[in-house]
Order: sequence, then structure tokens, then C-alpha cells
Amino acid sequence: MMAQNEWLHELKELLGEAVYTDEETLAAHAGDKWHAVAMPEAVVMPSSTEEVSALMRFATARAIPVTARGAGVGYVGGCVPVHGGIVLSTARMNRILEITPADGVAVVEPGVLTADLQDACAAQGWFYPPDPASRKESSIGGNIATNAGGPRCLKYGVTRAYVLGLEVVLADGRILRCGGRTHKNKQGFDLVGLFCGSEGMLGIVTQATLRLIPAPPARAALRATFPQFSLCAAAVQNVLQSGHLPCALEITDAYTLAAARAYLGPTALPADAKGHIIIELDGQPDAVRTEQQAIADILRATGATEIITAESEADVEAIWQLRREFSYSLKATGLTKLNEDIVIPRSALVGLVEFCEGMQRETGIPVACFGHSGDGNIHTNIMVLKDAEGRDIREPADALVRRLFDWVLAHGGSITGEHGIGLAKAPWFAQAVGDTALDLHRTLKAALDPQGLLNPGKMGL
Amino acid sequence: MMAQNEWLHELKELLGEAVYTDEETLAAHAGDKWHAVAMPEAVVMPSSTEEVSALMRFATARAIPVTARGAGVGYVGGCVPVHGGIVLSTARMNRILEITPADGVAVVEPGVLTADLQDACAAQGWFYPPDPASRKESSIGGNIATNAGGPRCLKYGVTRAYVLGLEVVLADGRILRCGGRTHKNKQGFDLVGLFCGSEGMLGIVTQATLRLIPAPPARAALRATFPQFSLCAAAVQNVLQSGHLPCALEITDAYTLAAARAYLGPTALPADAKGHIIIELDGQPDAVRTEQQAIADILRATGATEIITAESEADVEAIWQLRREFSYSLKATGLTKLNEDIVIPRSALVGLVEFCEGMQRETGIPVACFGHSGDGNIHTNIMVLKDAEGRDIREPADALVRRLFDWVLAHGGSITGEHGIGLAKAPWFAQAVGDTALDLHRTLKAALDPQGLLNPGKMGL
Repeated sequence: MMAQNEWLHELKELLGEAVYTDEETLAAHAGDKWHAVAMPEAVVMPSSTEEVSALMRFATARAIPVTARGAGVGYVGGCVPVHGGIVLSTARMNRILEITPADGVAVVEPGVLTADLQDACAAQGWFYPPDPASRKESSIGGNIATNAGGPRCLKYGVTRAYVLGLEVVLADGRILRCGGRTHKNKQGFDLVGLFCGSEGMLGIVTQATLRLIPAPPARAALRATFPQFSLCAAAVQNVLQSGHLPCALEITDAYTLAAARAYLGPTALPADAKGHIIIELDGQPDAVRTEQQAIADILRATGATEIITAESEADVEAIWQLRREFSYSLKATGLTKLNEDIVIPRSALVGLVEFCEGMQRETGIPVACFGHSGDGNIHTNIMVLKDAEGRDIREPADALVRRLFDWVLAHGGSITGEHGIGLAKAPWFAQAVGDTALDLHRTLKAALDPQGLLNPGKMGL
Repeated sequence: MMAQNEWLHELKELLGEAVYTDEETLAAHAGDKWHAVAMPEAVVMPSSTEEVSALMRFATARAIPVTARGAGVGYVGGCVPVHGGIVLSTARMNRILEITPADGVAVVEPGVLTADLQDACAAQGWFYPPDPASRKESSIGGNIATNAGGPRCLKYGVTRAYVLGLEVVLADGRILRCGGRTHKNKQGFDLVGLFCGSEGMLGIVTQATLRLIPAPPARAALRATFPQFSLCAAAVQNVLQSGHLPCALEITDAYTLAAARAYLGPTALPADAKGHIIIELDGQPDAVRTEQQAIADILRATGATEIITAESEADVEAIWQLRREFSYSLKATGLTKLNEDIVIPRSALVGLVEFCEGMQRETGIPVACFGHSGDGNIHTNIMVLKDAEGRDIREPADALVRRLFDWVLAHGGSITGEHGIGLAKAPWFAQAVGDTALDLHRTLKAALDPQGLLNPGKMGL
């Protein structure tokens, strides 16, 4: 790397107003929602693909690390510039270039917020399904970098399923276009898939062509309470086994429900609630109502003690609001939650919760499980206790994370379903994927980014 | 490469009964449904991953080309061993290892026929959606190699959407496991996606873990005839714009309909039929019936002159049988059809058919369009005329293929949606994907298969 002052001066000559070096901007681009931070030497906010390309040619010629950043709301330190250099923010590349229902596509720049795209599509009767909880603050570029999921991915699939084409600036500044605007495309290798989920380590997405589907005209929801968690897990199986594929199938464990009663008041949930399920359906109006009734019958037959149905938009939204309250209830315990987005084979759901309850009994550290039970993607929250001075007691909680990951991997699971590897999960990456896959990651990284400049220091590569 | 006799002897010592060198077996593994053939020096039919691994170590040490072959029913010469060497047939690795509804997964060897897996899943109330027309004779391994589609991919997505995990033998014989049995997995780069659709050029799939979904309990279908093709295309748009996402939306042009009336008799279709649409719905029984009615109304309002609905399994099947008859009708013309599986943005459907009609008027060579209009994947059949001796007059038809591909690419389309590139479309590959993407293909190929032994000579790489 050249002496810093020299290249900063040249960078400003090259990209002018897009370059920031003030402390405040650098500090605002030092981390995401995870705890790690590292200061970059410069932040660049390009407005065009050409500027991104110029930046990468510049950085490659001088061996300067470039860490791409979407909205900066990731959970794994995926955009922390641990090797310094330049943070490339896509914040200014935030235009929806096109929404074309006749082709079922939208074309967007990477800085567009996911919810903004969804709202713009909905206004034309169309639907962009991926729905990470962060959708109001996360960007399409970040969603692509992490191949973001969400509750509705049970029915609709994750971000990858909606990316038809990408424009990507490669490490050396070349502009790659792959995929396209057709809904099927078998032209060669799946380059689009290679960049989806690559966490900014193989190239920088500068434009995405996304698949839209007709907006289902109606939705409905149910929620149900169970006196045992295992009944709740059985309900998940029974619903699916009966030929229903809801858009969401969300589960909540006893610890979280108790926290919710404490936070929301005793009337919010039955006192004996040890498991809770939220099911959302969408489709044609008659279909949704009929299916809602059939599913209510299944839940009742599986032992639900309270079943609440919602047909109106407001009532459905109230059920989702309750799910958000579950999350706030955990925050209201005053503890810090380590939110691990592990995934298990669906049949291991009861085993996971019993394992977590066992760890809690043994260590006194609470573990709260809730999330996307339909696809086994359970957000497992290890609650960090405080010492007398109110400081987090991290070490025993970190030990629990290790035990949790060991259990998940031993049971055919994945240590991350949505958040990615980044920095946070890098220590487990080799164990999770195995030596051959790790080696193939290194091969791909070296092939596409021979100097290792793109988001260096992530995934342990 | 070593002298042939020497390595053949060693190969038989290594893999014994799995090795074939008789002329009949070699000839049976020289090609697929495309016209090109090339004789391999040996055919190996391994029974296990370990044998595949041993074969690849052997081949790599001696620089012998290895061309993997599924059921050999591809359309683009994708498994023709153009550089000789070994054809690796997966025919004996044909076990369904597991179907586990509680996890929503099936684990299979690559030689399993797609329809056999679908039948086995259906017997347990579960569904493996990808449905290439060849599903009764094509294998899962071949489906993965080409990322196979089919009519129902409009609603359900292509093969990639159902591959959760893969075991792959790499060029050097190492055994890679990637993905897994969870329905979400964000552990690193998308290695599963890298191998899906890679046409046997990056590794050899030896086991696949597939995602299953609950089988929709009911289906229904409609078919409708239109006096103008443009009305038919408008109906496709109107159905989707009204919030319906059928599992299939198949369109047929005037030339094919005329051939069908000639083949099936004048009562099979109205005399003025210039466009025809088949729509399949699936889901809960009430939902399907309501939606069928709503769609019939849309078709009528868009100008359909005859609408036929099907509710029973037998009636639905009869509609699909008619679609197959369309295909037979083209064969019954006595002409050879060059079936090009191009894809266009959905809004270009009328433009495509008018372009094809124009070529036909100009050259006298018939062009028949039918296929998956919902996702723009139209099988465009250029009908090869015969000379006085009954021989194909190929050259003018080949010229039409070139014009068709030029038009498709100029209109934002893809030259293949399902069949792949292989040999047949290799001449157009660079034009289709562009120089940077072509170069990236070469980079990936060199990184994973440095000696270029895996299915060499394909995609022009």
C-alpha cells in the first residue's frame, strides 16, 4: 500500500465530492450492528457504476482494501473495514430505475431500501417477496450480499430466487453484466448466484434486475398458544403435512413468552403459554379464508389452547406487531441478547429448544428461541447477564454460543441462515463447511480477487 | 495423455466391472438427443462416490478427459465426449437414499430419474416441483447439470430452488460437501449454485439433498382459444396483472395450432384458432375452483372464443395430453424441428411471434412457437424442410436460428432457458454473455479444473 496521504490526495482528484475523510463520516462507516468497529482511511459514496469502476481500478493499482457497505445494518460485522483502506458506501446509488409489470421485473441500484422497493411495487399490484426484519432500513445491495431471508421465505424463497440479473464491478474495475431480465436463463454458469451471498468479497453489485410476482390480493393470519412447546412443534409438522404451505410459520418458546407477559401484562397471553405460533397465509380471498379455517382445525386438534384469527389488514398487522413485541420483551429484560440465526432440519426443533433449556438450567444464562420454524431458521438468543456494575458478563455467554454451534452442526444444521459469516462467525466457518469447501472458497476468492482487496478479513479467508 | 492401451488396462485394474470398452457400450454413450456424436475410449459406470473419486484421481494423474453423463437425453450435445477419454455414466448411482417429510428433504444419487423421485414423494404427500418435459427419462444429476426447468417453474422456480446440498467430486478427486439439509443456509459463498447448471464442467455431482414442499391437494386447468395471437399474449398479462400466479401458463401459436388440426382432425380445435393458452392451478380444493372461475372470466374478457375447464385429474391430464399432441403434430408434418428454448422478457411475446412469422413469410421455412409464456421461455421450433430425396435442407434453417438468436439477444432475451449451452449453442455463447462474463467463465473453469478435463470442449471454454 502507498503512503496514505499520497493516495488520499489522488483519490480526491479522481472522485472529488464523493470522497470523505472527516472523522465523523469515517466513524459512521466503521461498523454495523455487531460490536466490532475499525476506522477506514476514506469513505467513498459513488453515484454511478463508472465511479465504482474508477475506484476499483484506482484501488487495485495501489493495493488498497475496499469494503463495500449497504445500509450498515448487518449483524455479523460484515462491512467492518478491518484492514482499513476505503469504505465504498452505496447510499447514493439509491434509484429505482424501473418497475415493469409486463416483464415482471424491477431494476434498481444497490442502495434502494428494500421496503421502498416493496412499496413501489405494491402500488402497481406487484410483489417483491424477500422480507428481512430489517427491510425498512436494509438495502437491496446488502440483501444481495447476505442473500437475505425473512419470515415469508418459507413459501417464497430467499433473495437469490428474485435476482435475475446483476451488474457487478470486479476487483480490477471491469464491469460484468450477468443474468438478465428474463425469468429463466441457462446461459453458462450461475454467475448471479456466485455474487448473491458473497458478502462483498468477490465483486461490488452496482445494479440488480429483480423478479417480481403478482401481489396476492388477500392475506390472513392465525396465532395459537400451546401448553407445551413440543405440541407447538408438532403443529408446524401437521400444518405442512396436511398440504398447506403458509407464507410464514413463526414459533416462540416459553422463555420469550414469559418475558412477553412480563413486558406486555398478564392479559397479553395465557398464563400457561409454553409455545406460540403465528401463521400467515396469502393468495386469493376465498382461498385464504378456507385455508385459515382448515389450519385452525389442525392447530386445535394438535392441542392449541387459544387460537386467534385475523382477516383484516389491521388484524393481521396486529399479529405481526405482537411478534415484534416478543423481540422488545427480550430487550426489556435489560439483558443483552446475542441473536444467533442458526438453522436446523425442521425435525430437530424440539431437540434444539430442549438443548437450549438444558444449557439455561445448567448455567443460569437464559436462552430465548423464536423464529422461522417452517424452514428451521430459529433465532436463538443467548441473553448476556450483567455484573454488579451493570457490565455484560460476556465470557460464559460466548461459551454457550460455541456449545450451541457445536450442537447445531452435529445435528445437520447451519450456523447462519440469514445474517452471513462476516467477522462474527468467521471463527466457526472452517468447522461449519469443512476443509474442502473452505479451500474452494479460497480458490474462488483468489481467482476473482487475487490481491484480496475486496472486504478483506471476512469468513477467515 | 498416456498411450491409450496402457491406461485402459490400469483403469480396469482400478475399477474392474465398472469399466466398459466394448463398441456397443461406447457407441451408446457417444451422444445425446442432439446430432453430434464422438466415441469415448472407455465408459465407466461407478456405483459409489468413492469410485467416482478414484476415477477422477486416476484421470487427473494421466490428463484423461472425463465427460459426465446423466440419462443422456439432453438437447445440446452437453455430454458428447468430443475430446474422447472417459464417459462417466451415473446410471448405477440411482438410489433414492431418503425421503423425510419431517425435514422436507429427499436425498438421492444423481442417476435417479426425476419422475421416479416425484412419484415416491407424492406417495408420502410431498412434492418435488421441477418438471422438465423429459422428467420420465431424465435424471436428477442431468437436471442439476442443466438447472432444468419445465412448465411449473413459473410458480415454483427451476431446479436450483430445490437443491439444498450437494456432494461433488472435484477434478482432482477430492470430495466436496456443500450446502446441507437445512432450508436456509448462508454459510459462505453459494457453492451449490456454482455447480447447479455447470453442465459437468466444474465437478461431478454424486449426491443431492433436495427440498420438498407439501403436495398441493388439488389442481385444475383451463384452456382457451383466441382468434388472434396478440389476444392470447394479452391474456397472459391480464391473468398475472390480476394477482394470479398459476403453476403453468402455456401458449401455442397459429402455425402449431394449424398443424394440430391437420394431425388431430378439424374438431380438435376451432378453425379460427390463432392462439391457445393452457393454464394450470394448484392449491387447496376450494381455492383452485374459485381461481379457475376468476381466470375463465379474465380469458373471456380478453377475447377467448372457446374456454374449456378441467377439474378432475383425468380432465386436467387430458389438457396436458393436448399439449403433447401439439408437439407430435409438429413431428407429424414430416419436417425436422430445431427446438430452440429461447427466453424473452414477457412483454416481447407478440414481437417474437411476429418476428418468426415474418421470417417464415420471407423464407418459406415454418417457425412454430409454443411453451412457457408465463416466464417468457418459448420453445421456438424452426422446421427444417426436405429436399427431393427427403434430406434435411439444413443451411437456410441454421441461418434462421442465427437470426432468431440475434433478435432474442437484441430484445433482452436469453438463447437458452432450460437446455443449456453444451456444444449446440457454444457458437453463440460469447455473444450471449459478453466478453467479461466469458472471461469469468474461463477464470472459474481454470480455478476448479486447471487441466480442463471435465467435459471439455463445451460452452466454447
